[in-house]
Amino acid sequence: MNKLIEKVDKALDEYLEIKYPEDIFKSMKYTVTLPGKRLRPVMCLEACRIFGGNMDDALPTACAIEMLHAQSLIHDDLPCMDNDDFRRGKPSNHKVFGEAVAVLAGDALLSYAPQLIIEKSKNLSSETLIKVLLEFTKTAGAYGLIAGQVVDIESENKGIKNPEVLDFIHTHKTADLFRLSLKAGAIIAGADNNALDEMDNLAQKFGLAFQIYDDILDEISSFEEMGKTVGKDKNSNKLTYVSLYGLEESEKKLNILFNEVYDIINKYNSDILKTIVDNMKKKLEKNGG
Amino acid sequence: MNKLIEKVDKALDEYLEIKYPEDIFKSMKYTVTLPGKRLRPVMCLEACRIFGGNMDDALPTACAIEMLHAQSLIHDDLPCMDNDDFRRGKPSNHKVFGEAVAVLAGDALLSYAPQLIIEKSKNLSSETLIKVLLEFTKTAGAYGLIAGQVVDIESENKGIKNPEVLDFIHTHKTADLFRLSLKAGAIIAGADNNALDEMDNLAQKFGLAFQIYDDILDEISSFEEMGKTVGKDKNSNKLTYVSLYGLEESEKKLNILFNEVYDIINKYNSDILKTIVDNMKKKLEKNGG
Repeated sequence: MNKLIEKVDKALDEYLEIKYPEDIFKSMKYTVTLPGKRLRPVMCLEACRIFGGNMDDALPTACAIEMLHAQSLIHDDLPCMDNDDFRRGKPSNHKVFGEAVAVLAGDALLSYAPQLIIEKSKNLSSETLIKVLLEFTKTAGAYGLIAGQVVDIESENKGIKNPEVLDFIHTHKTADLFRLSLKAGAIIAGADNNALDEMDNLAQKFGLAFQIYDDILDEISSFEEMGKTVGKDKNSNKLTYVSLYGLEESEKKLNILFNEVYDIINKYNSDILKTIVDNMKKKLEKNGG
Repeated sequence: MNKLIEKVDKALDEYLEIKYPEDIFKSMKYTVTLPGKRLRPVMCLEACRIFGGNMDDALPTACAIEMLHAQSLIHDDLPCMDNDDFRRGKPSNHKVFGEAVAVLAGDALLSYAPQLIIEKSKNLSSETLIKVLLEFTKTAGAYGLIAGQVVDIESENKGIKNPEVLDFIHTHKTADLFRLSLKAGAIIAGADNNALDEMDNLAQKFGLAFQIYDDILDEISSFEEMGKTVGKDKNSNKLTYVSLYGLEESEKKLNILFNEVYDIINKYNSDILKTIVDNMKKKLEKNGG
């Protein structure tokens, strides 16, 4: 696990060179390289390995997915969106570089990520690249992450409390990025459609589990643990699994999902994917969840 | 010319369907479909024709380029950037949909544009698609449009008045989109590297001519003519060709560039490209320039 994180961190540092005009490249690199668990790129690399591919072939795509994730964080933190001053324990991008550069850094990441996939994936055929790029662009856009963020903002403004809306938000805001990670890794390895469908299914369950886990942590843990403002969801009357179902019911739902996720992972003999879920369970226990 | 504009407008309308969540799709469509001259998509289609390609094969890419252009307008108009309330005679995107949705609509266009190129370019090989997508992503990102916008903002804040900076800004903010339009059209037609280099050269000259033309119009024309706030450049002490060289010298520079542009266009027997330049000259004369 740590070896894969190091591999991703090293590649991210290399791929994000500081050129002129420096501010934009520094701003892009700042959020992308904030220390993190690199769940999405690690899952992309591991999906590639599971289906018999060479992990190095998936490295540019794995890093592009981390850049897309960072892009969504930079724009979500803006004053006109969630207005968050902290991210991973550090000032958020617009607090360091100003709003204009933060907007532009997000934009630049949205284009640099697919550019990187094209330029650095030396061993992939054009056909494979096109498949990966189609998954990438659909996930990044109004059929993916952005659909989730728009409904999230609107439901908050309107005070909507509805399970279908909550599932829609996190299918797109959360599960879609895991879906992209797993499917892109599998595509690069040349996996068949059945395998892609199973990765779809795994991503959906893991994504919702991850969001419930995040909502529970927001409820029970501290700023130091989370590296971002906590308890904010409750204060802003935000629609979350905990606010909708209560803590106990959310924990039950999460355990069911964790078990379903383990069932799929066990078929593939993946220590990495198992460790990711184990670590989430341990963190909850540590925080008294 | 009008037939090509209609072709582009019809395709843009078809490609931008309103789905759930409606606000984001409406916001994307609002700015993209504001009436305009569609210079960039028309140039893309015409470059494809010049080099022996079928214009219809370039239509998705031409529309994707118009979407990229609209994206840059939506984000440039935001309060944290140029803070413009009007665009093409209508309220700018964030005045209609709010800042959060306007940021997200720009983001969504940045991903939908390449998605469209992949999904709708039925006759193009994967190799050709990859070449087009690489030009597209480089132009959209920190090596293209965004480099220009960042230096534009920073030079304004610092009150820099420097010809190299001004040329850098508009090489990227203005010429790069024309470069993408001409080169993508030529790539789709299967043009050789010499042809691509000449399109590069044409785009650079046309792009700078277009910006000087725009700066002169901002100085001499009215809100009704421009459809956006005019005289703003002067008021905000913005670095423009007119503020740096004065009106007369700018007009001289523009005429030299126009002649160089005509010289290249004449080689290709393109009534469309000639008409675009003729119309710019006529508009300046009409406004007393």
